[in-house]
Amino acid sequence: MKTITAEQFRSEKRNSTSNQSDNEAIDQAVLEILKQVMKNGDKALFHYTEKFDGVTLDEFVVSEQEFVEAREMVSSDFLTSIQQAKTNITTFHQAQVEHSWFMDKEPGIVLGQKVTPLEKVGIYIPGGKAAYPSSVLMNVIPAKLAGVENIQIVTPPQSDGTINPYVLVAAEESGVDTIYKLGGAQAIAALAYGTETVEKVAKIVGPGNAYVARAKKWVYGDVAIDMIAGPSEICVVADETAPISYIAADLLSQAEHDESATAICVTTSNTLAEKLTIEVEKQTASLDRKAIIQRSLSQNGKIIIANDLKDAFNIVNELAPEHLELMIQNPSESLQYIKNAGAIFLGNYSPEPLGDYFAGPNHTLPTSSTARFASPLGVYDFVKRSSVIQYSQAALLTNAEPIKTLANTEGLTAHANAIQIRKEKPDA
Amino acid sequence: MKTITAEQFRSEKRNSTSNQSDNEAIDQAVLEILKQVMKNGDKALFHYTEKFDGVTLDEFVVSEQEFVEAREMVSSDFLTSIQQAKTNITTFHQAQVEHSWFMDKEPGIVLGQKVTPLEKVGIYIPGGKAAYPSSVLMNVIPAKLAGVENIQIVTPPQSDGTINPYVLVAAEESGVDTIYKLGGAQAIAALAYGTETVEKVAKIVGPGNAYVARAKKWVYGDVAIDMIAGPSEICVVADETAPISYIAADLLSQAEHDESATAICVTTSNTLAEKLTIEVEKQTASLDRKAIIQRSLSQNGKIIIANDLKDAFNIVNELAPEHLELMIQNPSESLQYIKNAGAIFLGNYSPEPLGDYFAGPNHTLPTSSTARFASPLGVYDFVKRSSVIQYSQAALLTNAEPIKTLANTEGLTAHANAIQIRKEKPDA
Repeated sequence: MKTITAEQFRSEKRNSTSNQSDNEAIDQAVLEILKQVMKNGDKALFHYTEKFDGVTLDEFVVSEQEFVEAREMVSSDFLTSIQQAKTNITTFHQAQVEHSWFMDKEPGIVLGQKVTPLEKVGIYIPGGKAAYPSSVLMNVIPAKLAGVENIQIVTPPQSDGTINPYVLVAAEESGVDTIYKLGGAQAIAALAYGTETVEKVAKIVGPGNAYVARAKKWVYGDVAIDMIAGPSEICVVADETAPISYIAADLLSQAEHDESATAICVTTSNTLAEKLTIEVEKQTASLDRKAIIQRSLSQNGKIIIANDLKDAFNIVNELAPEHLELMIQNPSESLQYIKNAGAIFLGNYSPEPLGDYFAGPNHTLPTSSTARFASPLGVYDFVKRSSVIQYSQAALLTNAEPIKTLANTEGLTAHANAIQIRKEKPDA
Repeated sequence: MKTITAEQFRSEKRNSTSNQSDNEAIDQAVLEILKQVMKNGDKALFHYTEKFDGVTLDEFVVSEQEFVEAREMVSSDFLTSIQQAKTNITTFHQAQVEHSWFMDKEPGIVLGQKVTPLEKVGIYIPGGKAAYPSSVLMNVIPAKLAGVENIQIVTPPQSDGTINPYVLVAAEESGVDTIYKLGGAQAIAALAYGTETVEKVAKIVGPGNAYVARAKKWVYGDVAIDMIAGPSEICVVADETAPISYIAADLLSQAEHDESATAICVTTSNTLAEKLTIEVEKQTASLDRKAIIQRSLSQNGKIIIANDLKDAFNIVNELAPEHLELMIQNPSESLQYIKNAGAIFLGNYSPEPLGDYFAGPNHTLPTSSTARFASPLGVYDFVKRSSVIQYSQAALLTNAEPIKTLANTEGLTAHANAIQIRKEKPDA
């Protein structure tokens, strides 16, 4: 990990120029896949599954039998743990449930906001070598609480054509309707446009690789998506009281995700920065995913020296990190200064993995500085609102003039006429 | 307007295949504009404003003097009307304001959701020939209520280099910080990436032409956007009690927007369908925007005969219209059957223009069937949420095992280690 000053951080940031229109090579491949799936449906899905996952399938839908077998393969420890996590995730997300409301502040006038769950939702769960049962819970539970009737998972098959048993058990525990053995851009296309087997959904959520992310970007507008997810990030703000071994462990837990993951510590203490560099190297040596961690840290790892805590919080707000840990004295008093962060972990005993798996808030969080404008996945992602307007005859006629004035100002005289005709023919 | 059956409607719908990846010609032009603005900043903006708006500007920012002059040009009727509208829009949107919350259901555990306004927001207001002061109110007021500190409007200049005075007065009344004389994809690029003059924003909202819509699609992910807006739509559900002259007037108010606007009546009454066809023709003859209306109705106008009201509501949910009017007996009792619609107008005295200008709910609504998953613009568009997690030492150590089990299941052993190290060195 290299140590830099706040000035160096800002100048590096100014010079970074990547943007959404800068993905030509991947986009070309993705667009071809979208086109083929729209045109050839299931046939295209079988083709791409052979090509990209190396598996020839007879059908995409996971069978009852496969769920039963999965149950027999997982440990009771796993089952207890996932059930505890489910309880915690449910408790937190219940507080996000929204209800329809109406107001009748003036006689003859009712205004409202009707909240309706999305009808069908598709969830992408990464597969292949790794298995992410926690992502199943984090995506399915808020959709369920929102009242979504039909929840479909797509996840790429393993090389033997099966799906990881932990994923299957997590899906069953959380109440998924169907699991399709499908991955990549072709899975996104199938959910967005439908095929003979896969039902078209209203929204696609869940993380994936670069092809999945770009496919989501392309279908956005035809369906809703949660976000275009990038590599995972952590930022730890540490003052001189922070336990160095904890900071190091937390940075490394982020770095193990993949080579493009980012681990940053912002500290007010030069001494801490020096000791942390040594501790990170020491802990890395004994970790399973050492090779990934080393590449991730050398590419994206940073210790930034801030002038004071205020400066540190400014750096955080410029970074807008996915995960933020505040290992400082009185962390909750500093919460007011944090504007941009996906999830905020307070104090020395709230490490990121606690939030990844267990505490309750969602682990699907805005990456790549999108915490400037985006939120964690939540129940609000699975509902939509409709406005409701009801005026009585008297209420409309009383207010006819200003409405007509505004319509005429905009040159929309047929708009004015829709009001005027109700005045002229009040009881048509 | 042509009259069709529910079956014909469904078969037409199945055969429509337009999708987001089907915009190559516009995309090419838009991508070039985005690239030039990112590279050359203000210089590119001056160039495109000359090219597309036919105006050579010295600067983009609307001056104090221009605001003063605008005030002198608008009528007092307009001013009163817009102030009344502002009051109504504010009252409705105040009910959408969200607050941070925290829960402490277990000892040593605090979880929460922190709500933070977006820092800077950009609003696109269409310009040129038409002027839309109502769109200024509908976009600015929810942003203000959310607590957004910096609100910038972009709007294309008229051929003499000025901005429509109604737009300027509406902007001043609603508290906009800056107005830039900028339109098209170049305005979206400037807001998304910043130039010497234009500040980069966190979110871009507001309607525009096809170039603006595609530019928003491309910058989505680098900044947030409200939606990719398409042409405007109305669907009127009418039973045999509905006043035919009102239905016709309301359909025509939608059709006057532009040729691609859609006006649909779904009715259970054959007699009404016949009479409505005649009434629409009759009313059209005397309207200012007759030519647009005729083209819009012949391309997209439809009367759909439904078997019964239940069938009518199913058609509505398949259409997912931007505006829905229920001109039926006891409309509020039918609200429960409406799943997909941007705004729902109940009864004979709640015509769409009432909502466009005055009642209070937002007139920026999901178009092109996106009401399946999207909501009206609201205060919720201008805030974001951050999760907050705080565990005490005791709470973390009590729950250490299930967290480690889940991390190890996913093969993320450095995640498990971040928990384990706090167990091994509890007071580091």
